[in-house]
Amino acid sequence: MALIVQKYGGTSVGSVDRIKNVAKRVKAWTDAGHQVVVAVSAMSGETNRLLGLAKDITSAPSERELDMVVSTGEQVTIGLLSMALHEIGQDAMSLTGWQAGMKTDTVHAKARIEAIEADRINTALSNGKVVIVAGFQGINEQGDITTLGRGGSDTTAVALAAALKADECQIYTDVDGVYTTDPRVEPKARKMDLITFEEMLEMASQGAKVLQIRSVEFASKYSVPLRVLSSLEDIRSFDEPGGTLICSEELFEEKNMEQPLISGIAFNRDEAKITINGVPDKPGIAYTILGQVADSNIEVDMIIQNTGHDDTTDFTFTVHRNDYQKTMDIVKPLAESMGAREISGDESIVKVSLVGVGMRSHAGIASQMFSALADESINIQMISTSEIKVSVVIAEKYLELAVRTLHKSFNLESE
Amino acid sequence: MALIVQKYGGTSVGSVDRIKNVAKRVKAWTDAGHQVVVAVSAMSGETNRLLGLAKDITSAPSERELDMVVSTGEQVTIGLLSMALHEIGQDAMSLTGWQAGMKTDTVHAKARIEAIEADRINTALSNGKVVIVAGFQGINEQGDITTLGRGGSDTTAVALAAALKADECQIYTDVDGVYTTDPRVEPKARKMDLITFEEMLEMASQGAKVLQIRSVEFASKYSVPLRVLSSLEDIRSFDEPGGTLICSEELFEEKNMEQPLISGIAFNRDEAKITINGVPDKPGIAYTILGQVADSNIEVDMIIQNTGHDDTTDFTFTVHRNDYQKTMDIVKPLAESMGAREISGDESIVKVSLVGVGMRSHAGIASQMFSALADESINIQMISTSEIKVSVVIAEKYLELAVRTLHKSFNLESE
Repeated sequence: MALIVQKYGGTSVGSVDRIKNVAKRVKAWTDAGHQVVVAVSAMSGETNRLLGLAKDITSAPSERELDMVVSTGEQVTIGLLSMALHEIGQDAMSLTGWQAGMKTDTVHAKARIEAIEADRINTALSNGKVVIVAGFQGINEQGDITTLGRGGSDTTAVALAAALKADECQIYTDVDGVYTTDPRVEPKARKMDLITFEEMLEMASQGAKVLQIRSVEFASKYSVPLRVLSSLEDIRSFDEPGGTLICSEELFEEKNMEQPLISGIAFNRDEAKITINGVPDKPGIAYTILGQVADSNIEVDMIIQNTGHDDTTDFTFTVHRNDYQKTMDIVKPLAESMGAREISGDESIVKVSLVGVGMRSHAGIASQMFSALADESINIQMISTSEIKVSVVIAEKYLELAVRTLHKSFNLESE
Repeated sequence: MALIVQKYGGTSVGSVDRIKNVAKRVKAWTDAGHQVVVAVSAMSGETNRLLGLAKDITSAPSERELDMVVSTGEQVTIGLLSMALHEIGQDAMSLTGWQAGMKTDTVHAKARIEAIEADRINTALSNGKVVIVAGFQGINEQGDITTLGRGGSDTTAVALAAALKADECQIYTDVDGVYTTDPRVEPKARKMDLITFEEMLEMASQGAKVLQIRSVEFASKYSVPLRVLSSLEDIRSFDEPGGTLICSEELFEEKNMEQPLISGIAFNRDEAKITINGVPDKPGIAYTILGQVADSNIEVDMIIQNTGHDDTTDFTFTVHRNDYQKTMDIVKPLAESMGAREISGDESIVKVSLVGVGMRSHAGIASQMFSALADESINIQMISTSEIKVSVVIAEKYLELAVRTLHKSFNLESE
């Protein structure tokens, strides 16, 4: 008997019929002898409906009151799912965030879970109940309802799995797992059975948006095996439920005999770069420029500064394409006042990254990557590396060609 | 400075614009120097939408889970109303039933309030906030959400007023008060400024459905002055806010110099009567018949048994017209087995009642009533009296004529 935490998103519980299907799936797991705790989101569309009501009242709602209103979405789902389980003969109990002991800090709209007092959940489990917990919400020390912000239901599920020492946390979604790259770009992309937390973090942050990055960080921190799988497919086997298992490197190595060099290819279409040429090469330059950008809540992705010459240096960074003009407006006067020689930008770039824990011991990955791109005459504008990732910035028009070329070159289509 | 509890029903908060209007009204009271606690219902239609979702899941939902789902309706309203108050510069805080310390028994769907732990409300009030409490809901000793059943938001408001020792509990609705009789039957019906709890209970139970009877009982028990007034009219005066004030007999006498004999005329269209003639006149007969009726959850209104003769008696009672056939099916075999001479019924009757605390000292009320009805050749089928009420059962076709005749005879149109 295993203890499984399952999470179903808004689409999976988007209608009465879908809620009934989720109930059947949950019952299949208990019938197979497992204990199940379920975290659910609001029915799809419901959160936006509630936000819309608030927006019609005021353009600047109090975050405490917004949490009060928005948290009702999940509360409706847990009650309905519990009823659906009763209807098919499975004992079940719903719990709101505060009833489930989900203690958070006091930051409304993006609270962080501080502790889970799981007594009520544990009692219900030992009484043979399925426990259904409202995702995305908790309670702070003032006794106010908080919400966890975007992707919060994934985080709820992982936090529950960690607190309950669950054997696995299963995130049900409308895709059947994590792919070597986006199948819309490379139809030969292959679903991975296994990926490490670190790889998933690199993949997720770059566009493979299957899971909220915060829940992966959380799972990594508490070593909760995390499985992404489809809520549309039938259950094949309770021992091998399919999807992609995201786990620690230890478990990965235990399960994966022959480790691939590269696990997947991530990319980010929406990048823009800004280059400042010939700024004085002295301490504080990077801070002066990027400090102002950060103060304007613009997120900076890559930052590259090469060794300078003539006491000047060239400095390049990338931002989301939507922030390009705003960033330029901030940086231009700044660069001029520093006496920079030139400031230029490009809104038509993309970032492509190879990700894999295997690359640590293989210095040849980068050169194989550069060679494959050169064979297709794809010019590399910037390079950046980390322990398990090599990223390049190229012109946007080469994105698909680059992804397919690398996918083939690193043999990702075959197991 | 007074402490006022206000209650707004589903229609008054039925849209974003109406919620904004409620906010303005609440702020007018705080601007006039008063402290205000508000109890609100779900936006009109919302409770039925939620019940509909549950019904689509199962025909027999768990009451605990139904309370979980349905209680979200009020939670949305309190958040929105709080935002609307912020928007016009009034500090405010919303509280769910459990946050407001609304402790109930464990009966789901029709819980009773056992205590209010009002610390949080009192703190917020002393910090200059308007406190907005979700009506219709509470929390039981297991930490589960309960709902109070029909008309629960009125009860929430009265219970809050009692616990906080408020100066007045104002129930805002779409009528401007309690009338001497239904204005649809007698256009000359007059709004009463003042009525006692006892009179209101007699009026309410007989069809003047302005207030839930339970909230009137509650207000009476804790001597909370209860005012019914329109949420559509402008505020005329904070000292004399209009509507109808329902209060204890002491306050009534204090405010009302010349007490009328009769306060109002209540009636009930939906009655049916069943008469059993010639049953043995011995102990236990009434119990045998009515016990079986009560066991089938049929509510009995009037019960009349006259002194018998020849060791037999005649026994008549009234039920709601919808229950007539069901009652007949229960009573017929029973009466036959008792050797009753005859069993008969009539589905075309109504009950008309004069209500007034003043009648206690005036024995002539009943005879004036019978004489006025006789003048119009209206035959009285049954008579029943209580301390502050005289009720007669007459044929349905005479209802309007009887009400207008009595309204005129007792001078109710003039003050």
